[in-house]
Amino acid sequence: MAVPGQNVAVVGHRAGDLRLENRPIPEPGPNEVLLRMHSVGICGSDVHYWQHGRIGDFVVKDPMVLGHEASGTVVKVGSGVTHLKPGDRVAIEPGVPREMDEFCKSGRYNLSPTIFFCATPPDDGNLCRYYKHSASYCYKLPDNVTFEEGALIEPLSVGIHACKRAGVTLGSKVFVSGSGPIGLVNVIVAKMMGAAAVVVTDLSASRLQKAKEVGADFTIQLQKETPQEVASKVESVLGCMPEITVECTGVQACIQAGIYATRSGGTLVLVGLGPEMVTVPIVNAAVREVDIRGIFRYCNTWPVAISLLASKRINVKPLVTHRFPLEKALEAFETTKRGEGVKVMLKCDPTDQNP
Amino acid sequence: MAVPGQNVAVVGHRAGDLRLENRPIPEPGPNEVLLRMHSVGICGSDVHYWQHGRIGDFVVKDPMVLGHEASGTVVKVGSGVTHLKPGDRVAIEPGVPREMDEFCKSGRYNLSPTIFFCATPPDDGNLCRYYKHSASYCYKLPDNVTFEEGALIEPLSVGIHACKRAGVTLGSKVFVSGSGPIGLVNVIVAKMMGAAAVVVTDLSASRLQKAKEVGADFTIQLQKETPQEVASKVESVLGCMPEITVECTGVQACIQAGIYATRSGGTLVLVGLGPEMVTVPIVNAAVREVDIRGIFRYCNTWPVAISLLASKRINVKPLVTHRFPLEKALEAFETTKRGEGVKVMLKCDPTDQNP
Amino acid sequence: MAVPGQNVAVVGHRAGDLRLENRPIPEPGPNEVLLRMHSVGICGSDVHYWQHGRIGDFVVKDPMVLGHEASGTVVKVGSGVTHLKPGDRVAIEPGVPREMDEFCKSGRYNLSPTIFFCATPPDDGNLCRYYKHSASYCYKLPDNVTFEEGALIEPLSVGIHACKRAGVTLGSKVFVSGSGPIGLVNVIVAKMMGAAAVVVTDLSASRLQKAKEVGADFTIQLQKETPQEVASKVESVLGCMPEITVECTGVQACIQAGIYATRSGGTLVLVGLGPEMVTVPIVNAAVREVDIRGIFRYCNTWPVAISLLASKRINVKPLVTHRFPLEKALEAFETTKRGEGVKVMLKCDPTDQNP
Amino acid sequence: MAVPGQNVAVVGHRAGDLRLENRPIPEPGPNEVLLRMHSVGICGSDVHYWQHGRIGDFVVKDPMVLGHEASGTVVKVGSGVTHLKPGDRVAIEPGVPREMDEFCKSGRYNLSPTIFFCATPPDDGNLCRYYKHSASYCYKLPDNVTFEEGALIEPLSVGIHACKRAGVTLGSKVFVSGSGPIGLVNVIVAKMMGAAAVVVTDLSASRLQKAKEVGADFTIQLQKETPQEVASKVESVLGCMPEITVECTGVQACIQAGIYATRSGGTLVLVGLGPEMVTVPIVNAAVREVDIRGIFRYCNTWPVAISLLASKRINVKPLVTHRFPLEKALEAFETTKRGEGVKVMLKCDPTDQNP
Repeated sequence: MAVPGQNVAVVGHRAGDLRLENRPIPEPGPNEVLLRMHSVGICGSDVHYWQHGRIGDFVVKDPMVLGHEASGTVVKVGSGVTHLKPGDRVAIEPGVPREMDEFCKSGRYNLSPTIFFCATPPDDGNLCRYYKHSASYCYKLPDNVTFEEGALIEPLSVGIHACKRAGVTLGSKVFVSGSGPIGLVNVIVAKMMGAAAVVVTDLSASRLQKAKEVGADFTIQLQKETPQEVASKVESVLGCMPEITVECTGVQACIQAGIYATRSGGTLVLVGLGPEMVTVPIVNAAVREVDIRGIFRYCNTWPVAISLLASKRINVKPLVTHRFPLEKALEAFETTKRGEGVKVMLKCDPTDQNP
Repeated sequence: MAVPGQNVAVVGHRAGDLRLENRPIPEPGPNEVLLRMHSVGICGSDVHYWQHGRIGDFVVKDPMVLGHEASGTVVKVGSGVTHLKPGDRVAIEPGVPREMDEFCKSGRYNLSPTIFFCATPPDDGNLCRYYKHSASYCYKLPDNVTFEEGALIEPLSVGIHACKRAGVTLGSKVFVSGSGPIGLVNVIVAKMMGAAAVVVTDLSASRLQKAKEVGADFTIQLQKETPQEVASKVESVLGCMPEITVECTGVQACIQAGIYATRSGGTLVLVGLGPEMVTVPIVNAAVREVDIRGIFRYCNTWPVAISLLASKRINVKPLVTHRFPLEKALEAFETTKRGEGVKVMLKCDPTDQNP
Repeated sequence: MAVPGQNVAVVGHRAGDLRLENRPIPEPGPNEVLLRMHSVGICGSDVHYWQHGRIGDFVVKDPMVLGHEASGTVVKVGSGVTHLKPGDRVAIEPGVPREMDEFCKSGRYNLSPTIFFCATPPDDGNLCRYYKHSASYCYKLPDNVTFEEGALIEPLSVGIHACKRAGVTLGSKVFVSGSGPIGLVNVIVAKMMGAAAVVVTDLSASRLQKAKEVGADFTIQLQKETPQEVASKVESVLGCMPEITVECTGVQACIQAGIYATRSGGTLVLVGLGPEMVTVPIVNAAVREVDIRGIFRYCNTWPVAISLLASKRINVKPLVTHRFPLEKALEAFETTKRGEGVKVMLKCDPTDQNP
Repeated sequence: MAVPGQNVAVVGHRAGDLRLENRPIPEPGPNEVLLRMHSVGICGSDVHYWQHGRIGDFVVKDPMVLGHEASGTVVKVGSGVTHLKPGDRVAIEPGVPREMDEFCKSGRYNLSPTIFFCATPPDDGNLCRYYKHSASYCYKLPDNVTFEEGALIEPLSVGIHACKRAGVTLGSKVFVSGSGPIGLVNVIVAKMMGAAAVVVTDLSASRLQKAKEVGADFTIQLQKETPQEVASKVESVLGCMPEITVECTGVQACIQAGIYATRSGGTLVLVGLGPEMVTVPIVNAAVREVDIRGIFRYCNTWPVAISLLASKRINVKPLVTHRFPLEKALEAFETTKRGEGVKVMLKCDPTDQNP
């Protein structure tokens, strides 16, 4: 076990090579804070970097600390930091723009090509004991929000950004394609935004059961349906075509089903990513003015999520199904890789392993 | 008591003169349906026409049937009607455009200057036994939605339109000024749209209690505060300034408070109407880019409301505090005038006085 | 030649079978007007129905009058028509909703599945001498707007709807893919909406020359470039990636180029339609949040176009390159089919063949 | 006259006390650039600070360099600056956020309460020889854009921000109230955004003449009309009510006229600021859903303006009616105060006094 006071970190080397290492405790710059990490969730992308050493054009060339779904406690603040002080519990937004470019100035900083992002090569993540971060992207947690809820703001943000880009609003009928962690947060968020009915599809009955638990009105277990048949089933259970489809699998047939299923004038949001090139019924989408919109991470979601968590109107706690101390990171990653449960949480603070 | 089979109607004559009269049962045109009315709520405007014979430029010159918060059963359909049939239970949208003008074509038909509107002179309302209406503006009620819920879609629509124009969305902090029926529906709708916190102000503790019951997170009983003091209290209970203020009183001091209270970049929606000319801190609003937006009735709200009612995610039933048979309309109007309860419902079908 | 006073019409029968026929002069209904047709442009879809007897699922089963880019003079009005009178010169919007459904009510009537549309089977068009139409969809032309300008509002509307859906605004950089009639109107409209620079691609130098004439800032003659190479050339001539791409060819490689070319956070609008199934770099679009939006015809464009034409700020006259009297319709269709010029205009009024 | 090489600056002391002083040449920080100033326009606010020592709550307590409509040449860059180099000609956006708060993150950085802003106390402006500024808010000018055009981007930005907030788009009818410099830039921008017709009102015939020169379609010289009469005249010359009114005077009667004049469903933008409390016909605005929106400076306008200036589609040069060398600043301020011409430009570079 790592010696207390040192900075144990979970580091991805080449594909398949994950190590626990000691790293120096960083010194925060003028606008940064040093954090004692508390809870860090494992994301599919963390596992992917571990297994494959890359995601698309992002290649792990140098060893990289993993982790980007995180919360911790401020232990030191830079000279220019005014809104945080040691002892503050915070959730960490992993993306921090490096320059004030056109995307940042217009409120879409997630699209800034030079953005720093935890655990996207070459930027280190925060699956470690001590980590420094831009103070502006650390958000104070109210007393009634736990560290794990704080860490879950990251996956929740994907749902918030997707549902905002989709235009979910009061009375929306929503089709969520895929019932993994990202599908589930989209169900939660869509309902919170006033959706009147949400239907979820998946191959797995147990995953669909989880969707029911977090609020899905209907579920459809798919087998070998064609995309048109999926669309037809969705319309049938909802009683009408959904205005909005949130596609969380990235599978070609599911994207096709998403187009066929969406009502004229509606929106298909692509959240899941699969193969680069996909064949789609483009004329069907075009002549019915079904917009196709992707999302890249998120922006402006942490304050929204914290407000909701503080209001107790949203319950993400059931998403955490496993917990491991930081020292057992490899075991935690193996568990995630096997697809067990929903969210695996690593506990980085040896003195406090509570939620 | 009126003879069954005849068309008893509640008719406003000159100011203060409300009568029960028999009217001929109308014959539906090709695109119309004849309805046996079931439940009709009394609105403040109905009482106002009764008491004053006018609202602003709308003057009751000829006797006018009152009522526009209504639901009923289709008993006859015009030759061109395809989506409804006798026996269908429907909610009635009281505004029906008379021509396809620029406002209708662009989706804001409520602004069409020639629109027909129930119980706005010279157009008759539907507080009667039998009433004909444009089939396109009658919306079928699912089995699990009651007639009274159907009638309540009208006031609910004011809240839906107001909150949509306000841009209420996930995580919004909302200040609702005034806790009468319209304030209450705005609380309900704002919460449904994902507002993280809603604070309501009123002079009356009992009205604020009702706000709490329908979901307000905070209430503030006002006494003699200045507008700036109200704004300060609102910020204090929310922990920040609200992005959105929904003003439901029309009182000058409340409008002023609404401007001071709203966060920079936010929106003040004017729902309540008072004196035509009002003095407002316009520079305060302008330099903080607080938008001031009014609403006129609503558009495109019935399908949304029905979806929500059918999903059982919204509960408007507590709004109905009194019921009277149609024959006791005068007593019902007196009750409403005294400000008792929230919503008084008239039961038009002598064979079915259930909710 | 057809006898004056009779109603000569250009009628498509089976594929390849186009005839001049006499049709009865119709009688306008209460909300309709009877028009003496003046100028009708030939659209690619008219030629397609003539050649193939169908477009996708729309099949010419019964003989159908062609034509939908049209203007004429009111000769008779229905009893309920108040805003038009005999002698009024009008432009005709060819799509008229048949019912007030959710799409009409929300301002997107072009998506109404039961809409009447000139020269889309089974609905007759207006390439004839006398034609009746809904008065609400006939727009009075000011004295300083010619009949041909009135007829050109239809193709212009495609550009207006596309550029509005694209979000063209002040300072936009726009890439228009394809320099046929629809590409050209998009160039005109994009410039009118404040685009700072518009670049057009095409295979044909002469078509690109036309783009220059109507206001394109840059043109690129394509040969065998890959989609990525096209994107690169577009960025090179603009000095940056365009926020907006308007794809007017429907060709798979062009759609792919449109995705690669569009700046992160921008919009690709699909105007041209080609094969139903198309393979696209969906991940590239999704992770850069490049929205893909189709258009179906247009809505709410006639008043806009008339205002612009009346203001003399827009010049569509150069688009008309050929004119034929109605009797020579076949010759006119042959000319259009050969791809000569830009817009071929048929002159339906034997007493006035002026523009 | 000031010694070359020193940093002559125009400094406002107490009300009425304007001085030429030497200031130290500043040293740029890591993300800043040092600029040799070239052209700086005098704004009404500069004159107001000079005359009154304050604007609202902004009080000149310590001597403050004036000027915020500016352009110059980079002479030195901080260590972290990559997109600029010495010799680059730049336009300067005077507002620079000091922290990445919610307003900055969501693209409305102009509303950030802690923003630095040139010549708003206590922040110094750039009416001097040498000035340092955040590199991210200096925008490189293309060769075909002059320094004075660069300086004019500031007032032009007010028009861009106002017209964007107003929603000016293709075919808009626009009423601009007031024909001073800000009225004129709104005319220019509205036309650029596709407005079909712009009408301008003012008391002064000569100012209205200037409006005509920059593109106004109609002008109305006002005398003693009531607000309703103004609205009526505006409708009369346009042939319809304008969807958009841009109010540039701040006078109560003009704001009232703006409400009466604007079409139902339209927008009144408040650009001019007058007395804090104003009496307005709020019910008229509310029930016609005429939105009232203020603007505070601008955001995201420099790139747009530079693109337009580079495209030669917009001509702001006629706005410059007077030029003075920096040393004659007091004379220039006196000229501006007398209301002569439109825009007075100070030339800060003794070696280059060209436009």
